[in-house]
Amino acid sequence: MSETAPQGPVYNRVALIGLGLIASSMFWAMKRAGLADEVTGFARSAETRETARRIGLCDRVCDSAAEAVAGADLVVLCVPVGVMGAVAEEIAPALQPGATVSDVGSVKRHVIDAVTPHIPEGVHFVPSHPLAGTEHSGPESGFASLFENRWNLLVPVEGTDPEAVARLRRLWEGMGANVDEMDADHHDLVLAVTSHAPHLIAYTMVGVADDLRRVTDSEVIKYSAAGFRDFTRIAASDPTMWRDVFLSNKEATLEILGRFTEELFALQRAIRTGDGDHLHAYFTRTRAIRRGIIEAGQDTAAPDFGRGPKA
Amino acid sequence: MSETAPQGPVYNRVALIGLGLIASSMFWAMKRAGLADEVTGFARSAETRETARRIGLCDRVCDSAAEAVAGADLVVLCVPVGVMGAVAEEIAPALQPGATVSDVGSVKRHVIDAVTPHIPEGVHFVPSHPLAGTEHSGPESGFASLFENRWNLLVPVEGTDPEAVARLRRLWEGMGANVDEMDADHHDLVLAVTSHAPHLIAYTMVGVADDLRRVTDSEVIKYSAAGFRDFTRIAASDPTMWRDVFLSNKEATLEILGRFTEELFALQRAIRTGDGDHLHAYFTRTRAIRRGIIEAGQDTAAPDFGRGPKA
Repeated sequence: MSETAPQGPVYNRVALIGLGLIASSMFWAMKRAGLADEVTGFARSAETRETARRIGLCDRVCDSAAEAVAGADLVVLCVPVGVMGAVAEEIAPALQPGATVSDVGSVKRHVIDAVTPHIPEGVHFVPSHPLAGTEHSGPESGFASLFENRWNLLVPVEGTDPEAVARLRRLWEGMGANVDEMDADHHDLVLAVTSHAPHLIAYTMVGVADDLRRVTDSEVIKYSAAGFRDFTRIAASDPTMWRDVFLSNKEATLEILGRFTEELFALQRAIRTGDGDHLHAYFTRTRAIRRGIIEAGQDTAAPDFGRGPKA
Repeated sequence: MSETAPQGPVYNRVALIGLGLIASSMFWAMKRAGLADEVTGFARSAETRETARRIGLCDRVCDSAAEAVAGADLVVLCVPVGVMGAVAEEIAPALQPGATVSDVGSVKRHVIDAVTPHIPEGVHFVPSHPLAGTEHSGPESGFASLFENRWNLLVPVEGTDPEAVARLRRLWEGMGANVDEMDADHHDLVLAVTSHAPHLIAYTMVGVADDLRRVTDSEVIKYSAAGFRDFTRIAASDPTMWRDVFLSNKEATLEILGRFTEELFALQRAIRTGDGDHLHAYFTRTRAIRRGIIEAGQDTAAPDFGRGPKA
C-alpha cells in the first residue's frame, strides 16, 4: 500500500459502468477509504441492477448509463473489452467537461482505439488495468481488499493531462494498489505472457480432460489435486470477458502461443527420445522464477497456497 | 477421513526408503495417529540423513537401506520413479518373509515392471500412489496433515494377498486419506490427464516467459498475479521427480499432450479468425468442471484459493 494514503475524497462523484467483480470491489474499496463522496452505478442487465440495489452496491444505482455519468468527475468503464467502444459512444454526450474517463480492461491498445474517438474535447481519458481478480464474477463477487498489494497499470495516451493521471493514481493507491505506468503495446505483450496465454492454456487443458472418453469426468474431479486443480480455477473465469480479451489482443496472444507450442514440442521430443538431461535442466530453471514471485510479495510461500486439508 | 479410524498400530515396524516430502509427511502422520511402533528411515544423501536426525524425522535413521528394512513388516519406497528398480534390488536380500513392500511413485506400470522381479517369494508388493503434494521437497517439507481428505490409489498386482492390501489401506485411512483401487494402465492414463500433462504445460509456459527477450523477468514476476502465478507453483516442483515421471509415463503423457495441442490449435484458429462463439462455448463448458471439484471437496471455493491480500 502507498505510504502516502490520501486524506479525504479524491473525486466528488465516481460512476461505475458495469457492475461485475472489479466494479463491485472498487465500490467497497473506495467506500472503505472514503475516496469518493458519491458512487453511482449502472449495469446493462436489470437483474444485476436489482442485485446491486439489494446488497447496497453503489450509493445510487441508475437505470441508464447517461444518468449514472451525469455530474461525475470520474467515470470508470468496467465492461468487457469488446463493448468498451459502444459504451463510450453511449455516455459521451452526458460527460461533464473536465471529467476523467478510465477503464479496467485487460487489453489496452484495442480499448484505446475503440474509446478515444468518442471522448469529447475537455474530457480526459486515462486507460488503466488493475492486475487483480478471482475466478468469480458478478456484482456479489467484489470485496474491498481485492486490490491490496496488487498492481494497477496506467496507460496514458499521448497528450493526457498529467494532473488527471496523478489524481487517478491517488485513487488506486487509496484502494491499496501499487501503480505503474506503461505503454499500451508493451502492456499487451506483458499481459499476453503473464495472463492471456496462461488462461487459454488452462482452458484448453480443462477442455481436453472433459473430452477424454476413457477417463470419466468424475475421475478427473476426484483426482484433481494432482496439479489439474489449479488449472480449473483459471479456467472458471468469466467466458465473455475472456472471449473479448483473446479477440482484442490477438497478435500478442498468438505470438506467445506460438512460442509456447514450439517449446512444448521440444519438451515432447525430449520425452519421446528419453533426453532426461534436457528435461531436468528445463525444470530446474523454472523453479527460480517461483522464488522471485514469492520474494516480490505476489504470492505466499505456504505449501499449496496454504490450502488447509479440510478446506 | 475414514469413519473407522484404526485403533492402535497397523504395522510394527515401517521402513521409509527416501526421505523427501511424501516420506516425511508419512512419518509425521503415522506418529500422530500411532499407526506404527517404530519407523526407520534411509536416504541416499548423508546430508539428508543428518537433517532427518536433527529434526527427529524417523525413530531411527539408518546408514544403509538394508539396515532400515531389516525386521520391517512394511517397506515404502519413496524415491524417484527412475530408481525404484535399483532400490528394490538393493533391499531384496534384507526383506523379512511376510513383509509388504509398497511405493508412492506417480507412475505405476513402469514401477511394477521395475520392482516386481526383485520381490522375493513370500513378500507382498502393493504399489500405491498418494495424490497429495506441494511444490516443496526434501526432508523438512513434510507435515502430518498432507494426506487428509486426499486420495491414495492402490494398484495391486495380480495374485497379491488381499489381506496385505487391506492392511495397507488401513494405514492410509489412518493417515486421513481416502483410498481407491485402480488398474495400473488406467492409473497412468488418469494421472497423465490430471497431473503429468498439466505439469509439463506449466513448466513450458514458465520457461517461455523466462525466455522472452522483450518482457523482462522482473515484469513477469511483478505482474504474475494475473494467472501466471498458479503455473509457477506447479513449475516449482522437484525436477528429478518430474523428469522420471515423464520418462516413465511416456506413452500416456504424449497421447494427452497430442490431444492438448490439437485442441489448442483449434482455439488459436478461433482467435485468428475471430470466432467468438467457439471461444465462448468452450470457456463456458470448462466452468462446470471447477464446480464439480469444489463440490467433491478437492478445493476451496474461496476466491483466489483464499489467499489474503497481504500473504
